[in-house]
Amino acid sequence: MYTYDYLLEFTRQVFIKMGCSCKDSGTIAEVFLAAEIRNHASHGMIRIKEYYELWKAGRINVSPEIKIVHETPSTAVVDGDRAVGMIAAKRSMEIAISKAENAGTGWVATRNSNHFGIAGYYAMMALKHDMAGICLTNANPLVAPTFSTSRMLGTNPVAVAVPALKQPPFVADFATTPIARGKLAVAEKKGERVPFGFVQDKNGDPSDDPSILKYGGSMLTLGGDRIHGSHKGYCLSAVVDILSAVFSGANFGPFVPPSVAYLPVLEKKTGEGTGHFFGAMRIDAFQPAEEFKAKMDEWIETFRNATPGKGHDRVLIPGDPEREAGERLMKEGITIVPAIRSDLKDIALSLGVPFE
Amino acid sequence: MYTYDYLLEFTRQVFIKMGCSCKDSGTIAEVFLAAEIRNHASHGMIRIKEYYELWKAGRINVSPEIKIVHETPSTAVVDGDRAVGMIAAKRSMEIAISKAENAGTGWVATRNSNHFGIAGYYAMMALKHDMAGICLTNANPLVAPTFSTSRMLGTNPVAVAVPALKQPPFVADFATTPIARGKLAVAEKKGERVPFGFVQDKNGDPSDDPSILKYGGSMLTLGGDRIHGSHKGYCLSAVVDILSAVFSGANFGPFVPPSVAYLPVLEKKTGEGTGHFFGAMRIDAFQPAEEFKAKMDEWIETFRNATPGKGHDRVLIPGDPEREAGERLMKEGITIVPAIRSDLKDIALSLGVPFE
Repeated sequence: MYTYDYLLEFTRQVFIKMGCSCKDSGTIAEVFLAAEIRNHASHGMIRIKEYYELWKAGRINVSPEIKIVHETPSTAVVDGDRAVGMIAAKRSMEIAISKAENAGTGWVATRNSNHFGIAGYYAMMALKHDMAGICLTNANPLVAPTFSTSRMLGTNPVAVAVPALKQPPFVADFATTPIARGKLAVAEKKGERVPFGFVQDKNGDPSDDPSILKYGGSMLTLGGDRIHGSHKGYCLSAVVDILSAVFSGANFGPFVPPSVAYLPVLEKKTGEGTGHFFGAMRIDAFQPAEEFKAKMDEWIETFRNATPGKGHDRVLIPGDPEREAGERLMKEGITIVPAIRSDLKDIALSLGVPFE
Repeated sequence: MYTYDYLLEFTRQVFIKMGCSCKDSGTIAEVFLAAEIRNHASHGMIRIKEYYELWKAGRINVSPEIKIVHETPSTAVVDGDRAVGMIAAKRSMEIAISKAENAGTGWVATRNSNHFGIAGYYAMMALKHDMAGICLTNANPLVAPTFSTSRMLGTNPVAVAVPALKQPPFVADFATTPIARGKLAVAEKKGERVPFGFVQDKNGDPSDDPSILKYGGSMLTLGGDRIHGSHKGYCLSAVVDILSAVFSGANFGPFVPPSVAYLPVLEKKTGEGTGHFFGAMRIDAFQPAEEFKAKMDEWIETFRNATPGKGHDRVLIPGDPEREAGERLMKEGITIVPAIRSDLKDIALSLGVPFE
């Protein structure tokens, strides 16, 4: 069991040793730990190894020059200069927020970036400015469009944060697939099958085998099969890919560079690096800020007071589970499973950072 | 079998007789027919009866004064003055497009409106301006949040249109539920059951009964059940509701006025009428327009060339099925089933419009 502060400082030291500035390392550590305490451990400490290996493979730039390459009053395109994704993403969201200060809204498409952790972190940056925040990204191609067996899309998450007054903010942060890739790995390690509707085999037939991705299988889009609306999940995932890549000039769909060093980077490129898309909307560009936030309180209270179905004691608001997990983990500490702990020890040893 | 032109002129005459201007009636007719030829007949001629009854109930204003009530360089809030939804929506999207001309992007939240037909129509208005278009709306509360039995949300559709160069545009237009409400009605009339994952009974138990909405049941969000990610569909539907209603000052969630006159309008209001949200993004606010559109061609060709799974002969691009249906229906004509034809004849008779 580790404290938040211990893991934050460890992560910061790891990135300092890789050559990132103190400030950048602090940002990266903060996003890794935000994933841990928001109960998205699949994007937390487990990923440090991937970043370390991308760094060893020379695929991330520890002293990037992140630049606006094109802009209008409400938009910008940012080149991330192969930065660690968190650094390109935080800077891009800051630009979106500053555009919104002047134009009411700000929209930034970012190319030449890498994996950036949890999308919710950047959407939530808007909240303290009395803005709603939006963040999208494309990702490793593992997901097949409806009717296809080709792995063309990532789990392409959508995050939207909206401020409230007395209530905690509304924070939706979800992949456009039924489950995260990490959950397949967990089931595989436990020797369990997964429910139908998560993956298909190489022919496009339904499968309950969590290791199927190794045998030409693919993940399915939200909805699962065509009858249950998988084509709607495909639409949503495609929109995320287009906004993240075509708007920014990054690689789209099957050409997104894998965020794990052991997968080859394809020879064919359709742009630069991984792409993200950010939005910030000043709430007072629409309604007086206090009225808007009071109305969000009413929205949240209405939905929280919905009647729970049999076997459930309450109805959740997007953001509730993550916030409650955070309160618990800050008190009780964060568990790192032995396999990940062992990886972190190896990295610590090779970089000369203390880790117990 | 009817021609497009015959139904267009009939619909136009119906709305002229209700008191709408010639221009407005033309717009309304165009959106109704767009639904028919885009294979969304559930939003086509079948709905004229609902509009007619809302008009008889005094719930739509045939000579509205649609006004911008608040604005910034990239945003506006529009009051639809209880207009037929198409009129408020088209005007709002025009404002979004004109904001985008100046600020790069334009975002309009609209309140005090009514049902507006298919969302895709308004998103596609952006295409000829070399812009991407976005359109969202809230709707009749029939859908339960995950873990709940309360009907709190509509089928809340999302439409996104992106221009290409030689390829037809990318047009995603989808409800945030596995199926449209109209499909339940069709199954009910045929005496068929529906697959599990579409609806639940009043206790929140799985159901395959298409008439369950009449007995306290509710529709489920995209994903179906919690295991298959219904909470992600709930997040998406909630985002659509918040952007459409809290940003605009319309009624949210359970308080959206029903678009059918036989359902009571609740006494409690949380805003004015139904709410919509529109976006327009100039593609050259991000990339040179020709490069952007050529890249969209490449995106579309890549996905169209994905390997089809067993039993499928090709992979579709969002917008393909609707466009292909349109080409066929414009040639072959549009079928109106006897029950709807009979409703239309009654309306024609009472308004004094010829209809065969």
